[in-house]
Amino acid sequence: MEKKIKAGIIGGAGYTGGETLRLLLNHPAVQISFVHSRSNAGTPVYAVHADLLGETQLTFTDALSADVDVLFLCLGHGESKKFLQENIVVSTVKVIDLGNDFRLGDKVAGRTFTYGLPELNRAVIRQVNNVANPGCFATAIQLGLLPMASAGLLKEVYSTGITGSTGAGQKLQDTTHFTWRANNISAYKTLTHQHVAEINQSLKQLQSSFSGALNFVPWRGDFTRGIFVSSIMETQQSLNDLNQLYKAFYQDHPFTHVADTMIDLKQVVNTSKCLIYLEKEGNKLVVHSAIDNLLKGASGQAVQNMNLMFGLDERTGLQLKSTAF
Amino acid sequence: MEKKIKAGIIGGAGYTGGETLRLLLNHPAVQISFVHSRSNAGTPVYAVHADLLGETQLTFTDALSADVDVLFLCLGHGESKKFLQENIVVSTVKVIDLGNDFRLGDKVAGRTFTYGLPELNRAVIRQVNNVANPGCFATAIQLGLLPMASAGLLKEVYSTGITGSTGAGQKLQDTTHFTWRANNISAYKTLTHQHVAEINQSLKQLQSSFSGALNFVPWRGDFTRGIFVSSIMETQQSLNDLNQLYKAFYQDHPFTHVADTMIDLKQVVNTSKCLIYLEKEGNKLVVHSAIDNLLKGASGQAVQNMNLMFGLDERTGLQLKSTAF
Amino acid sequence: MEKKIKAGIIGGAGYTGGETLRLLLNHPAVQISFVHSRSNAGTPVYAVHADLLGETQLTFTDALSADVDVLFLCLGHGESKKFLQENIVVSTVKVIDLGNDFRLGDKVAGRTFTYGLPELNRAVIRQVNNVANPGCFATAIQLGLLPMASAGLLKEVYSTGITGSTGAGQKLQDTTHFTWRANNISAYKTLTHQHVAEINQSLKQLQSSFSGALNFVPWRGDFTRGIFVSSIMETQQSLNDLNQLYKAFYQDHPFTHVADTMIDLKQVVNTSKCLIYLEKEGNKLVVHSAIDNLLKGASGQAVQNMNLMFGLDERTGLQLKSTAF
Amino acid sequence: MEKKIKAGIIGGAGYTGGETLRLLLNHPAVQISFVHSRSNAGTPVYAVHADLLGETQLTFTDALSADVDVLFLCLGHGESKKFLQENIVVSTVKVIDLGNDFRLGDKVAGRTFTYGLPELNRAVIRQVNNVANPGCFATAIQLGLLPMASAGLLKEVYSTGITGSTGAGQKLQDTTHFTWRANNISAYKTLTHQHVAEINQSLKQLQSSFSGALNFVPWRGDFTRGIFVSSIMETQQSLNDLNQLYKAFYQDHPFTHVADTMIDLKQVVNTSKCLIYLEKEGNKLVVHSAIDNLLKGASGQAVQNMNLMFGLDERTGLQLKSTAF
Repeated sequence: MEKKIKAGIIGGAGYTGGETLRLLLNHPAVQISFVHSRSNAGTPVYAVHADLLGETQLTFTDALSADVDVLFLCLGHGESKKFLQENIVVSTVKVIDLGNDFRLGDKVAGRTFTYGLPELNRAVIRQVNNVANPGCFATAIQLGLLPMASAGLLKEVYSTGITGSTGAGQKLQDTTHFTWRANNISAYKTLTHQHVAEINQSLKQLQSSFSGALNFVPWRGDFTRGIFVSSIMETQQSLNDLNQLYKAFYQDHPFTHVADTMIDLKQVVNTSKCLIYLEKEGNKLVVHSAIDNLLKGASGQAVQNMNLMFGLDERTGLQLKSTAF
Repeated sequence: MEKKIKAGIIGGAGYTGGETLRLLLNHPAVQISFVHSRSNAGTPVYAVHADLLGETQLTFTDALSADVDVLFLCLGHGESKKFLQENIVVSTVKVIDLGNDFRLGDKVAGRTFTYGLPELNRAVIRQVNNVANPGCFATAIQLGLLPMASAGLLKEVYSTGITGSTGAGQKLQDTTHFTWRANNISAYKTLTHQHVAEINQSLKQLQSSFSGALNFVPWRGDFTRGIFVSSIMETQQSLNDLNQLYKAFYQDHPFTHVADTMIDLKQVVNTSKCLIYLEKEGNKLVVHSAIDNLLKGASGQAVQNMNLMFGLDERTGLQLKSTAF
Repeated sequence: MEKKIKAGIIGGAGYTGGETLRLLLNHPAVQISFVHSRSNAGTPVYAVHADLLGETQLTFTDALSADVDVLFLCLGHGESKKFLQENIVVSTVKVIDLGNDFRLGDKVAGRTFTYGLPELNRAVIRQVNNVANPGCFATAIQLGLLPMASAGLLKEVYSTGITGSTGAGQKLQDTTHFTWRANNISAYKTLTHQHVAEINQSLKQLQSSFSGALNFVPWRGDFTRGIFVSSIMETQQSLNDLNQLYKAFYQDHPFTHVADTMIDLKQVVNTSKCLIYLEKEGNKLVVHSAIDNLLKGASGQAVQNMNLMFGLDERTGLQLKSTAF
Repeated sequence: MEKKIKAGIIGGAGYTGGETLRLLLNHPAVQISFVHSRSNAGTPVYAVHADLLGETQLTFTDALSADVDVLFLCLGHGESKKFLQENIVVSTVKVIDLGNDFRLGDKVAGRTFTYGLPELNRAVIRQVNNVANPGCFATAIQLGLLPMASAGLLKEVYSTGITGSTGAGQKLQDTTHFTWRANNISAYKTLTHQHVAEINQSLKQLQSSFSGALNFVPWRGDFTRGIFVSSIMETQQSLNDLNQLYKAFYQDHPFTHVADTMIDLKQVVNTSKCLIYLEKEGNKLVVHSAIDNLLKGASGQAVQNMNLMFGLDERTGLQLKSTAF
């Protein structure tokens, strides 16, 4: 039997930590070395991630094992950099950061991070030791725009996106109180969402002329998982040409698909996929895109990156049964 | 023009306080004297109860006005007694307590409380100055059982009830976190819910032989408003006789109705009604009952009690537009 | 006692018919003359509108009484015109059409209809006998844009709106199947929604130079009641000036309010209100607006129009208790 | 490479057909021979099961291939028997029926069916060619009661269970209309649910003295997936003894676990597990049990049975990533 990849999860008690754990537990090429959580050390992981009852006897630890091939950093924003500063992680250990500390090129402890969007940077990801996993909204919006940018067609974009409550994390907040959020919709961080910067960085990588005119209005949705985005922009290309452009761009990317009929959020919930659908009226193109914020928008993409970094088929361990309903 | 009832709300920033406020704002015979909240003093009530934006310019106060005819105590359990001990409320001011401090006969500061279930104690409520408003589950279960007790027919009862998240109040808790509660069901306080005592007290008031064998399993539901209960018990009476018994019992009670077809929760949401439906197989009777936990289960019933205590038609201010959907 | 307005509801078994009925049952100046439904003639209204059990003994009828002051047409699109062609309605009877047959100026049987958006046409509505009630999305979008148009400031607009399932009516459809719609989001009628025409008509009424460049993407939401819209547009005005403009425009309109903090959908559910909130970044203005699609977006606005047409305070019968949660 | 099991799905366009397909697509020992659906013949399976877009190019067929090792019958009640009467299925082909045609011992075309609850009949299932897969509520209730029956301790049982909308199937119905079902609860088939017969059959198999006194009230829940049941019964055993009894009974069953803290529905959604939790007050035991109605309650258990029938580890292809949220 082949030697397995030894993986450690830092911040294993949060949502992305738990989701990474769920994926790695069933990953055929991975052996979980440890799940780190200071506040839960010594307790079984299923005491926090209750769905794992009956799946594993793993417990959280507050010790860092050096016997590890890859670390998943599932920490709050700002904490990944601090973690790598305060702990010695030997340079041969690969690091995948699910936070936003390194997405814009910041370095730490001799590590330079590659932006981990496989549809943009797959060839590079295969060669590197440090990956900054993209943000959830950033993933959904970029995947809807990359082909346009690759063809130099991108002009000003107007995007509205809606996200499930898991995007807000585990902390109890007024806006994640069930009584408030059930059957409710509201906007937040209007035109100022922190993911706009990484989106613009990627778009300019493909189309240097892009002015960065991305107007993004995020909404809070009354569901737990998923992101749905509709982006409007002007273009002279025909819908037929645009569909060809998009399908060609994603042709050999196994998780991103261009649909021929309207998509809906639940098509991708509990999968690592992104679905895209194009519509055109007059000279206005609308691109709809949908992902699961915790999978293609976080832990699923992190495991996809790990697969690439270790030379595995990028789908390994990610062919998940959709919830569907 | 007739003189209006001057009402004060103590604990006006919580759910039952807000709901009482919503009702009193539109009540034709009431003038709100003050809405008390220490932590929100000076801010508009709509800063907390956001739906009231555009409805009223009232602000919270931390002062108690003596110019008041009735006080609604909308406080946490245990705090009503404390409030009446620590503050001087002249004896002519009527008090309606929405907490559970006085439901089992406790007295304070010379005040003796009547259990405020109009379908049980209406004649008395009309005469008294102090009413202990029933609990929400207690209301739904009792209204499903009172006619049986009145006929001396009650034996051991098995009740399962499900409640909306507003029943858990405003405080952020793990079990009211949207991410946890959405699409979820769980049980709590199995066979030990605190409302069982007041239910048994009422049932014994009507049927002194009742042994108090009420087995109640409460569930947390993934909705915000409402309670639905199914109670099973043995009886030799025919379904026809039972329907006659129930309909006669509630004949002149304007908010409690016995339906001829299956009921559902949303029939009563945002109303002060209780709906009841009876089914029988073999010698087993099943009584389904449904209320809005914040109205018939709390603030609506409190206003109904106020109406009775002040000699008004008990429906005044309570003919609400149902949400229906 | 004053003579009451005698009202008839045509199409009383549908959602807007039922909602109109709920409002009129509690309206102090209205007496319901009849509720018309061919398919339900003879059955109690609560057999269809189950929440009305215990509220009324009214039954549906298939006969049209001439003893009526106002008719509410709550019919499918195209059926209102047909109804007025096939039935003799004396010209003194006022007609309020909740469908889309007359919103763009169509006439029938000697009747010319006024577009019934009080915030736009209140003075005229007070004088006329025939009102075409606006569409639900049309109401939410227009109320977010009217002040801009009134100041001649409107340029190209990008709107995304989300609607509850009641907007799709009573008919069972794949997109209103619970199993599909729960926790789901999707888009429909992208850039081609039928309400765009009536919105443009209103905007041009205030700003004749407006080119009609309204790009509207409607989404299906996983809730039953409400519409939330975010509209983006370019403007050089300061946020302060814009807030003053909006507040002045709606100053004497009792149901439309400009908020000073972010709004959310549930602030308006089960009310006749529209809430608006403005944000600005750079030269981009975002206007958020929220209504209850069945009230301000349909039956509530119809009753508001009736109040105006009969010289009543427009709020009469419309000061509803919000569901809040 | 080992030879794969060739599987055919009959009724592949319904919910249990689709869920079986989702499982078999990822099952390492199975090759899908065909997915039968008369009404969808020729169209891709993802045209019906939209989440499968990008997962498979399979199309529905109306032809039955004989080159098959096992047939999953995912048909409406009564249709499985008809299918086996009208089509020649050679006797060496194993049949797993997900409907209720054969759960009570009915035979057809020389085939005698074993009741496919592995926790009850695993040894037999391993030997047979024909399995009748249990009902969803039946699975959840039985797994909560089997240990009691195995010890001869079962007395009269009072069960309330709540089910997601997928339990009602794909057909558009009033009770699966989103507008009705969202945030709603109601009861149906009170004390008369069809699953009671198969539950009693199993309980008597273990405890012949059991009188069949199972009082079951099913509720419709406002979620799509899952079943939660609370069953009350009298017993003299201590809670400690009962926990030992239950844990011993399920010790070597990989999907059924006895929890040490309160369970909730979402712990099992999108898994093949059943979780159980015991509580006791006085002489009353309450057993809570939870399953995913489409997995342990249908397709997951069907695949578990297939695994047993073909000598595989029963967990093969069933270690699914839970949705968790």
